[in-house]
Amino acid sequence: MSQPLMTAAILEKPFEMTVKQIDIPKPGNDEALVKVYCIGICGSDVHYYEHGKIGRYVVEKPLILGHELAGEVVEVGEHVKDVQVGDRVAVEPGIPCGKCEYCKGGRYNLCPDVSFMATPPVDGAWAEYVSVRSDFLHKLPDDVSYEEGALIEPLSVGFHAMKRGRVQPGDSIFITGLGPIGLLTIEAAKLFGITEIYASDVLASRRELALDMGAKAVIDPIAENTEHQLDFLTDGNGIDVLIETSGNARVMSDSVKFVKRGGRIVYVGMPIEDKIPMDMLSLIDSEIDIMGLFRYVNTYPAVIKSLGQQGVSIEKVITDKYPLSEIKTAIEVARTEKEKSIKVMIYPGK
Amino acid sequence: MSQPLMTAAILEKPFEMTVKQIDIPKPGNDEALVKVYCIGICGSDVHYYEHGKIGRYVVEKPLILGHELAGEVVEVGEHVKDVQVGDRVAVEPGIPCGKCEYCKGGRYNLCPDVSFMATPPVDGAWAEYVSVRSDFLHKLPDDVSYEEGALIEPLSVGFHAMKRGRVQPGDSIFITGLGPIGLLTIEAAKLFGITEIYASDVLASRRELALDMGAKAVIDPIAENTEHQLDFLTDGNGIDVLIETSGNARVMSDSVKFVKRGGRIVYVGMPIEDKIPMDMLSLIDSEIDIMGLFRYVNTYPAVIKSLGQQGVSIEKVITDKYPLSEIKTAIEVARTEKEKSIKVMIYPGK
Amino acid sequence: MSQPLMTAAILEKPFEMTVKQIDIPKPGNDEALVKVYCIGICGSDVHYYEHGKIGRYVVEKPLILGHELAGEVVEVGEHVKDVQVGDRVAVEPGIPCGKCEYCKGGRYNLCPDVSFMATPPVDGAWAEYVSVRSDFLHKLPDDVSYEEGALIEPLSVGFHAMKRGRVQPGDSIFITGLGPIGLLTIEAAKLFGITEIYASDVLASRRELALDMGAKAVIDPIAENTEHQLDFLTDGNGIDVLIETSGNARVMSDSVKFVKRGGRIVYVGMPIEDKIPMDMLSLIDSEIDIMGLFRYVNTYPAVIKSLGQQGVSIEKVITDKYPLSEIKTAIEVARTEKEKSIKVMIYPGK
Amino acid sequence: MSQPLMTAAILEKPFEMTVKQIDIPKPGNDEALVKVYCIGICGSDVHYYEHGKIGRYVVEKPLILGHELAGEVVEVGEHVKDVQVGDRVAVEPGIPCGKCEYCKGGRYNLCPDVSFMATPPVDGAWAEYVSVRSDFLHKLPDDVSYEEGALIEPLSVGFHAMKRGRVQPGDSIFITGLGPIGLLTIEAAKLFGITEIYASDVLASRRELALDMGAKAVIDPIAENTEHQLDFLTDGNGIDVLIETSGNARVMSDSVKFVKRGGRIVYVGMPIEDKIPMDMLSLIDSEIDIMGLFRYVNTYPAVIKSLGQQGVSIEKVITDKYPLSEIKTAIEVARTEKEKSIKVMIYPGK
Repeated sequence: MSQPLMTAAILEKPFEMTVKQIDIPKPGNDEALVKVYCIGICGSDVHYYEHGKIGRYVVEKPLILGHELAGEVVEVGEHVKDVQVGDRVAVEPGIPCGKCEYCKGGRYNLCPDVSFMATPPVDGAWAEYVSVRSDFLHKLPDDVSYEEGALIEPLSVGFHAMKRGRVQPGDSIFITGLGPIGLLTIEAAKLFGITEIYASDVLASRRELALDMGAKAVIDPIAENTEHQLDFLTDGNGIDVLIETSGNARVMSDSVKFVKRGGRIVYVGMPIEDKIPMDMLSLIDSEIDIMGLFRYVNTYPAVIKSLGQQGVSIEKVITDKYPLSEIKTAIEVARTEKEKSIKVMIYPGK
Repeated sequence: MSQPLMTAAILEKPFEMTVKQIDIPKPGNDEALVKVYCIGICGSDVHYYEHGKIGRYVVEKPLILGHELAGEVVEVGEHVKDVQVGDRVAVEPGIPCGKCEYCKGGRYNLCPDVSFMATPPVDGAWAEYVSVRSDFLHKLPDDVSYEEGALIEPLSVGFHAMKRGRVQPGDSIFITGLGPIGLLTIEAAKLFGITEIYASDVLASRRELALDMGAKAVIDPIAENTEHQLDFLTDGNGIDVLIETSGNARVMSDSVKFVKRGGRIVYVGMPIEDKIPMDMLSLIDSEIDIMGLFRYVNTYPAVIKSLGQQGVSIEKVITDKYPLSEIKTAIEVARTEKEKSIKVMIYPGK
Repeated sequence: MSQPLMTAAILEKPFEMTVKQIDIPKPGNDEALVKVYCIGICGSDVHYYEHGKIGRYVVEKPLILGHELAGEVVEVGEHVKDVQVGDRVAVEPGIPCGKCEYCKGGRYNLCPDVSFMATPPVDGAWAEYVSVRSDFLHKLPDDVSYEEGALIEPLSVGFHAMKRGRVQPGDSIFITGLGPIGLLTIEAAKLFGITEIYASDVLASRRELALDMGAKAVIDPIAENTEHQLDFLTDGNGIDVLIETSGNARVMSDSVKFVKRGGRIVYVGMPIEDKIPMDMLSLIDSEIDIMGLFRYVNTYPAVIKSLGQQGVSIEKVITDKYPLSEIKTAIEVARTEKEKSIKVMIYPGK
Repeated sequence: MSQPLMTAAILEKPFEMTVKQIDIPKPGNDEALVKVYCIGICGSDVHYYEHGKIGRYVVEKPLILGHELAGEVVEVGEHVKDVQVGDRVAVEPGIPCGKCEYCKGGRYNLCPDVSFMATPPVDGAWAEYVSVRSDFLHKLPDDVSYEEGALIEPLSVGFHAMKRGRVQPGDSIFITGLGPIGLLTIEAAKLFGITEIYASDVLASRRELALDMGAKAVIDPIAENTEHQLDFLTDGNGIDVLIETSGNARVMSDSVKFVKRGGRIVYVGMPIEDKIPMDMLSLIDSEIDIMGLFRYVNTYPAVIKSLGQQGVSIEKVITDKYPLSEIKTAIEVARTEKEKSIKVMIYPGK
């Protein structure tokens, strides 16, 4: 009897994607098979597509990319009790070891043995089906769309940034960089009850989208002096928490000046430079906290509940939609059309 | 030259209020004189009116009540720089010593030497004017009404309850008791990004208002089994944080069963019983946290900013409005009309 | 080929212990077989021995008791990398599911599916050998004895109490109840840098041992007024954190009065009463925190490191030592000799 | 009637100290006059002596230096109740405004209006007497010497570093830089129950003193590879918290590599460089926390209690003692004899 097949998109080597038929995975005892409804293209997918590696992670054999997804459970393993066939689910794409000090301590995102989709050598889910440990599947309420379900992944980064930054209602927040992560961080701030959200990006189109999504004001870092503008916008009160998502060396280098005494900075965007000149004297003199951020942890259940909040508008970041068969076009759009395109969504079943 | 006079309402002894002319206070060097626009009647005001004391606080000489207020700055002391004449302000009614371990440690609400309005022997502000240390005046933005400004005081209790309960987006919250504090705690929960808010009260009118203000569901504790109902409403997931505002002994006694393992309970409503039978074994077995709450600390600036959030509806708790001259009617309404009346607001200038 | 056998002590039914030969367990792929060097008798072991149940946990078939142990690794499963044959280890006796919200959130002690030694129907380790998942084995440095290794389990309760109570150097601590847990909580407080430790118990012998182990002063709750005495001892400054280990209803009922404003109470000792009358008004008025405590989480590695601190004296709680063959005498001593006996240690290999 | 006089040391301009007679200050209503028993020379005193400024603080008129002191209360103002004549006290040298968001929020060290001794234009206490607001005087128990009392100031920096670094028993700590602050940070770590303390400095004499004071091992950053050495010393487990006290640009630049994933770094030592190249990618990838530290807050009462702990040895940092009349020699020793001299103590009464 022949094994059933599915369509998948495979990165053979940089700039070379193939779409072909491969075996549908068979779920293990504690796994469920998910029919992928939609799956986003992440900046990291584009980076692997272009460069074949990100830092210490190198694509050494053909790899399926993609890790921002939602779909329907179509088969469950023998021991699975938490989901059942027919459930609409968001997929949390990293499975940690469960045994190390990080896993036991509530920070499984730092697990050194995590198996994370689309991080070599682990395959992602630009495919019709994917098999996932069932406790990393999160049921979606009827009023949350699959698209929102897929966006929980990048939104989780912003949500985790709020936790890392110990953000509280009443805080003033400044977000630098308005790619998908930066824009969804605006939404995350709203989910935390923040009303005073400022944002900056060099692209006018993205600043406009930021305003549309709920930023109180935006800054053009080329035309305006960010520090003065923040002082003006906050009436001299300053910024409590900065979330840096651009990875731009100059922004990072200037960032200590953007928060008030005792302020907090969360660095999300990864720079390409080995070292960035930082104003450590001001950091000390102003007793500032800096928090690095790596992915997210324990965000999915909380995000799903929070999406019920008034005024949520995360789907606005989806600018382009493609079937899996057009993955090459889709990834080129994500790679080159920064002015027009924010989040590109792939639909494997179409 | 005669000292200018103002109208004030004075509690001479239980059930005996007089409205008379007294000296307008002269602001000290670091104080400002505030013309009171509106000021609420609090449950504690009613209690002093009825009983002449609350626990260890006893009214031993005529006392001006009232401590939930907003108004306009009309005069400032010599050293005052933070407000100026014409500013619209909410008044934070407790002035702590600034020197004790609580003040220095960021918990000035616990200062044993606090001077708190309408807590004997300190006068409150059921009067045309009141003089207050200027750093306890909080400027109101144009889009925040005086009524909202006055309500920041009781809302602060709910806001502080969110902090004491370490509430985070995604938490499920249950509020017992739907007087002004309970209802405003619904608003406080919304300000913290909470979407899953349940509430209970014996009065149907209050449960309806709770739904109108944003509760996801309400429970009638007489007709329904609270524990079963919570289990049903949360789909078996349970309550993360309970905020108890009723002070009802039976509710308090049952409350440990209302939260999930590892859950948190904040007790706000003061019981009249000396001791309440509590299920300490379950508290231990489920590793529950209980937090007492006394007033609030550092809430005003954060609350004022948060009021800009979508869907805020705190003014809905105001059911009755009276000029200061009708204070006797007003306080009787607050005292006796629990079914129809929630928050009674007094307007000294009218 | 016959399966190798070992000696084990089995609770057949209340008051009926048998010592017999049973199969040596075979370690699973991720388990290691530990030759038990010594293992303590816990209050819960005695309780099962006397009553056949603790709350919702009922002994329904013969059960091996014991869960405070240390020993030597003598065999490892196929996938085990973290320990090797010959390692001296302390055994953490509860294996959580690794998948629930508590496990993922860093509170695996609250896992509803935990498999905990000597909690029916899970066997404990009053036996020559026990097989344990290797990531719950914690290597002992050469300068930590097996006895200390076995005592890490009850000491962990006190250590976790320090974390639950957010104890910081400079805090004044009061410990009520001086059984093994209470006495080891004194040691835990010392490990957290606490110098101002007070303790109380009705037995003079235990108060003396408390002083010997590092309490600054002790209180006889029968002969002295605890509240006045604490006021005197702390020079009016009061107690920051109370750790209640007695489970005595009267002590629990009085305890809110034993801490200062803003103080914290950790309840460890389980009462037998369903409800205990508590002074909730003072709890609210003084904004006190109460924390239930259930076992411990992530304590073993930290405790092992901390044992290197100067002045540690946990072995002082061991008052009696018996070979496994004399388990009946041992458990009767633990059950009846409260005046003379604190911790009874069993040596299965002797 | 002539005003009584006292001897004081005055920095007229860089490198020019005079010792002369000036008026004894008259304590205000809430102040007490303290007869200075001993007072240390801080690195900042030396810096003002050499350069006439530190960053934004410039000595523009003659200034009394010195802010690490203890002495005896000899006179109290009218409203003073917390200390009395004859009390032995440590002096906390910064008086914050009490009204700003930092003061009210429990971080008065960040008060922008703090009046801090020996920070221009505020005089310090290299003098026979000093008048201080009484709530910043902290009574010393009989078993704490005046020298220890004076050292509470620099020790507070290390103590605050432990709090900023959220240090818990079981953590491994690495301290870079072993001047007085670095060495006293070893003591602070001991006060927090830390047993695994590593330290580094280029001077062998300081490394030896570190070992003598309780470091488990020391690293010579010139002769050894710090990262490899830490890996070896911790058996591959890595460092939980780094406290950087050297202010050395190269050490700061390398420091992100010295802590494990999820680790924390507290920067204490002020660099002279405007910008320091930092490895932000690793900071993000390892989700590291960085905390700047500015002085200390609410440390004195806790430190005084903690000094009762076994094995405390803070006086070991005092290497030189001088009467006030020899202040010029004393400051030159502090400035030039880094190899032999750690903390120089001045005795105004001798």
